[in-house]
Amino acid sequence: MGGTDPTIRVAIVGASGYTGGELIRLLLDHPNVEIAFLSAERHAGKAIGAVHPWLRNCPRMSKLKFRPLDELPDVDVAFSCLPTGALPERLPVLAERAKRVLNLAGDFRLRDPHEIQEHYPKSAAHPPLEDFAYFVPELTPHLPEGRFVSLPGCMAVASIYALYPLLAGNLIGTRVIVDAKTGSTGGGRNSGEPPAERSGNFRVHKLHGHRHVPELHQALTEFTGSALDLQFSAHSLDVPRGILVTAYSQLLPGVEPIDVKRAYAKAYVGKPFVRVRPAPKAPHDFPMLKAVVGSNVAEVAVSVRDGECVAVSAIDNLVKGAAGQAVQAMNMLHGLDEGVGLPRTAVAP
Amino acid sequence: MGGTDPTIRVAIVGASGYTGGELIRLLLDHPNVEIAFLSAERHAGKAIGAVHPWLRNCPRMSKLKFRPLDELPDVDVAFSCLPTGALPERLPVLAERAKRVLNLAGDFRLRDPHEIQEHYPKSAAHPPLEDFAYFVPELTPHLPEGRFVSLPGCMAVASIYALYPLLAGNLIGTRVIVDAKTGSTGGGRNSGEPPAERSGNFRVHKLHGHRHVPELHQALTEFTGSALDLQFSAHSLDVPRGILVTAYSQLLPGVEPIDVKRAYAKAYVGKPFVRVRPAPKAPHDFPMLKAVVGSNVAEVAVSVRDGECVAVSAIDNLVKGAAGQAVQAMNMLHGLDEGVGLPRTAVAP
Amino acid sequence: MGGTDPTIRVAIVGASGYTGGELIRLLLDHPNVEIAFLSAERHAGKAIGAVHPWLRNCPRMSKLKFRPLDELPDVDVAFSCLPTGALPERLPVLAERAKRVLNLAGDFRLRDPHEIQEHYPKSAAHPPLEDFAYFVPELTPHLPEGRFVSLPGCMAVASIYALYPLLAGNLIGTRVIVDAKTGSTGGGRNSGEPPAERSGNFRVHKLHGHRHVPELHQALTEFTGSALDLQFSAHSLDVPRGILVTAYSQLLPGVEPIDVKRAYAKAYVGKPFVRVRPAPKAPHDFPMLKAVVGSNVAEVAVSVRDGECVAVSAIDNLVKGAAGQAVQAMNMLHGLDEGVGLPRTAVAP
Amino acid sequence: MGGTDPTIRVAIVGASGYTGGELIRLLLDHPNVEIAFLSAERHAGKAIGAVHPWLRNCPRMSKLKFRPLDELPDVDVAFSCLPTGALPERLPVLAERAKRVLNLAGDFRLRDPHEIQEHYPKSAAHPPLEDFAYFVPELTPHLPEGRFVSLPGCMAVASIYALYPLLAGNLIGTRVIVDAKTGSTGGGRNSGEPPAERSGNFRVHKLHGHRHVPELHQALTEFTGSALDLQFSAHSLDVPRGILVTAYSQLLPGVEPIDVKRAYAKAYVGKPFVRVRPAPKAPHDFPMLKAVVGSNVAEVAVSVRDGECVAVSAIDNLVKGAAGQAVQAMNMLHGLDEGVGLPRTAVAP
Repeated sequence: MGGTDPTIRVAIVGASGYTGGELIRLLLDHPNVEIAFLSAERHAGKAIGAVHPWLRNCPRMSKLKFRPLDELPDVDVAFSCLPTGALPERLPVLAERAKRVLNLAGDFRLRDPHEIQEHYPKSAAHPPLEDFAYFVPELTPHLPEGRFVSLPGCMAVASIYALYPLLAGNLIGTRVIVDAKTGSTGGGRNSGEPPAERSGNFRVHKLHGHRHVPELHQALTEFTGSALDLQFSAHSLDVPRGILVTAYSQLLPGVEPIDVKRAYAKAYVGKPFVRVRPAPKAPHDFPMLKAVVGSNVAEVAVSVRDGECVAVSAIDNLVKGAAGQAVQAMNMLHGLDEGVGLPRTAVAP
Repeated sequence: MGGTDPTIRVAIVGASGYTGGELIRLLLDHPNVEIAFLSAERHAGKAIGAVHPWLRNCPRMSKLKFRPLDELPDVDVAFSCLPTGALPERLPVLAERAKRVLNLAGDFRLRDPHEIQEHYPKSAAHPPLEDFAYFVPELTPHLPEGRFVSLPGCMAVASIYALYPLLAGNLIGTRVIVDAKTGSTGGGRNSGEPPAERSGNFRVHKLHGHRHVPELHQALTEFTGSALDLQFSAHSLDVPRGILVTAYSQLLPGVEPIDVKRAYAKAYVGKPFVRVRPAPKAPHDFPMLKAVVGSNVAEVAVSVRDGECVAVSAIDNLVKGAAGQAVQAMNMLHGLDEGVGLPRTAVAP
Repeated sequence: MGGTDPTIRVAIVGASGYTGGELIRLLLDHPNVEIAFLSAERHAGKAIGAVHPWLRNCPRMSKLKFRPLDELPDVDVAFSCLPTGALPERLPVLAERAKRVLNLAGDFRLRDPHEIQEHYPKSAAHPPLEDFAYFVPELTPHLPEGRFVSLPGCMAVASIYALYPLLAGNLIGTRVIVDAKTGSTGGGRNSGEPPAERSGNFRVHKLHGHRHVPELHQALTEFTGSALDLQFSAHSLDVPRGILVTAYSQLLPGVEPIDVKRAYAKAYVGKPFVRVRPAPKAPHDFPMLKAVVGSNVAEVAVSVRDGECVAVSAIDNLVKGAAGQAVQAMNMLHGLDEGVGLPRTAVAP
Repeated sequence: MGGTDPTIRVAIVGASGYTGGELIRLLLDHPNVEIAFLSAERHAGKAIGAVHPWLRNCPRMSKLKFRPLDELPDVDVAFSCLPTGALPERLPVLAERAKRVLNLAGDFRLRDPHEIQEHYPKSAAHPPLEDFAYFVPELTPHLPEGRFVSLPGCMAVASIYALYPLLAGNLIGTRVIVDAKTGSTGGGRNSGEPPAERSGNFRVHKLHGHRHVPELHQALTEFTGSALDLQFSAHSLDVPRGILVTAYSQLLPGVEPIDVKRAYAKAYVGKPFVRVRPAPKAPHDFPMLKAVVGSNVAEVAVSVRDGECVAVSAIDNLVKGAAGQAVQAMNMLHGLDEGVGLPRTAVAP
């Protein structure tokens, strides 16, 4: 970056949730961004650090308070971190004041009207004037040209990175089983689950019918052209951050392990934020939460034996699964290097 | 129990590991048991509570110290909690002094000589004079008649309880995928993993080739008569206790959800320690660790949609997966009620 | 226990909280108790296991549901696990139907009217017709004779066990500093703190003015006759269960370490649930949470150097700090051995 | 920073421990640093990411491997992250090749020969030719002029920040009690404690005689000129990172709460990495781990009632307590802004 790089004026709408807080954390260190506005209706007037204690020691935070959405000024980018269902009615305000809207919630990801009606009734009732482009930085073939962009959901994107090379390479049969495990920030700030009941527990979140399934199906179909028979189940971990996905499929006849290995290497060459673990043997060689928490990296690996193919991916749901992905998208849409301001090292142990 | 119930003199061999400690905890409260001997070679001479601090406040523990195995007295039952590979050479000592040997490790579970050679080379080199009977209390059709009994492994037994009704009822296709998640006591006391690296992590343990796979295959085949094409992967949780298994299969044509439901109800009727969750909807209705830790209960549930069948089971790996299972076996072999001394409530939150 | 021991009919009022759940768990295994009634206003009509999943596998739980308080039948003992402030108005109902009321909340512990007014305004507005006796099983010199008994608070009782021998023996100066650390169940089920914010955190709970301070002051003064200048601060741990208290004082001139050691040994001789760790050196020799969770034991130790005296105690806040203490009191008040139904081993690791 | 800022060539000696790993993480993002060399004797030849999985996705890490110390090239700064006792014998190598040595271990912090002999016998046997200056960035009055600099220990520095304003302002009596609580990385990578035994536990680490006590005593005496009668005890938390210290003292007669408040404000004005929490009331307003983990900030607060003074501080032991402190020192010693490359936001929840 040099003196000629732009300064991007951004607003974060719905900034009091975990995703909003993480977006603030990342953008504070971004050399080309000016945070111009933060909204949070319930918390309007409060200091940022009163809601996100982990940000309270940053001096830039002392100048900013949460404001109501109707005070939104003109900005280059409005990130919407509103909870699912809240954006559709508020979109006109964002559309008027922001040159570009990046949406981190699920409202405008799907294209099938029946699925929209079932999973996102608010979106069905308040459709946008202009379509949202669904954008996965590493896989969407062209940069979106419109003003409205939807980022992928955390569970879907973790699964997509794990499965894309297999389906794009036509290496596996259509039946795919995804077993996902996710940390507690995935449920947002108001889950109501007491800490004592999450602590030491591991449990089912949803075995069938998860809202991210149609998104995952749509994305994999579009990116790869493959038909897909998908079973997706999600579980809840006693950790604050991270998703690990294990995806099971069977190699098509004639496909060799080396073909699989090459497909992964090829799919992500030149993609700095999707890292293929080359030949994992010991447990810690595989993708794992501790290697990605706090970073924008998705780790991916695949293991084959006797035709059974097991793909694994790990991401930080708040970074690569949400706020970091959105910053990466913003970078690309503004002609910056996609990695500006985005950490590749995890904060561990 | 009445005045005519027997008092069973027991020894615990290899009592310094987590399984041994848990067995002591359970047997201390068992009304028909006298703990006559505890061996731990490295710790011989030490007080029990110095090795298992969680037992140090029990007054009966002050009378007992760990002793070397060669001091083993005559007992009714010797429980072997030795690490895998240690029993085969020591079996003659146990066989001489104990009327019955219950083995909690993997050494003598398998029947296929090639599998034994691959996974349990010590057992191949030192086979027992008399076969060990593999005993799953709820599923083995007859009580073992011999003196030597092998208890099932924790990962295998969690999977067996989840899958048995489907296979026994001939309800699913042969391809079965088991995704297991286990707490850190499953790796024993000397894993060498630092607490800071387990904490907040979730990771792969083994995607292919886990030692419990041939056991699981053998058991399901024998108990159900079904052929089976099995993919088993294991993952590591940041919790001390518990295993949750998610097992994926597809219903055979013509099988209805109600058939599945009936199969589970029927399989475990009259089995107090395998509890079918009837019609789970919310996440906490499904089997989960917090509902079983500290207890001898296996929780099981099954969910079907569009022919996709997802079975879930949860156990405490140290209780129903090891020490509690062994006590239940002992109870049955000695004509006691199978539940004597075994908790059905979890210790939570 | 023999055939002549009584069966005590008990009710648990306010049984949907963590303390109520723990009391159910303990009483289920108590050979002399019949649980006759469980109330929980918000949950009336629900099954016990729907509210306390950790109890759902116990068959006796299937016969019982939560009921509204006004259906309370005649019982021998009513345990009140109502949240602080809820009992005073409801006491007449309990007083009419129960031969004895054991209160686990803070309402009727204090004697100083100003302190009651400040900390327990509901108790000031609705005083009981008859005083509640404050009962610490190991320290209260005589069994209470009245019908109404108050059990000590969890933070207070942990501190009392640590400090009693020093003050009773007149071994230390009046200034005592207590630094307490407590798990998340101590805050009850409705703290509103999200799991992701408790996880990995350690924080202040209250540095001055904790509600348990006047109780602690009153109890230590009454039990020991010593004046006391007390500073008490509480902190919040990321564990579900347990309190560890570190108490700092200075030996009076002429007092030797051996005097201190003897005072602890003497104070708790014959008290099975307060265990003095004799001469701890390594970290795991001291009182710690893992040695007491799930059990009714308070571990205590003291360390002296250069006149500085540091006393430590550890309890499970839900057992020795609440439900277990109440069962121990019930046992004593009904002429049973104080330990009936109360575990001395912890459930760990 | 501008084009004229220096590039500092650094070596990290003993880079395979947690402190070394954290130093790598911070220096990777430092605009004025070139990491020229990383040593780790046991791991020589291994890739950085094989030892620190949380760094494996950073591309710069692929160029570097651990090497043996004797290959140390000429550098501007050698950071020693060797375990306590390992540096003294190796110092000549560092002294020959590095213009400046910054030591993060305890070896050369103390000045009293008896204390050195007791706590650091290796340092007594191999004293350096030139003294190490003990450097606390916010409190040491002048920048060290020599080549050898010792950074403070994590427990000591957390305590120093909490207590300095009280002692410097002559506001409290001499008796000070420090109750410290620390996460598991504080014990290093080879503690041998199994994850299952740390998990859910809270325990004593050391009640008397901690190695950081003489350091704390020496530092507070030198920085403030006050006499001090210090009791320091340390405890172990089930979290990977963080130290929280609670320090108890009594105000001298005539000292008012406002004097205390002013002393803290004045002591740390213009110190960006020690942040005084102004008037905390609710628990989350006080210093806490979640507000500092991952950042170089020490949070400090003080609360006074009835002459009892309770000061609290929280740091990330690996950042402000070790690696971040060392980077801050390096920045200052090289004429850079002290905050270059150092995060002020925590990575949470």
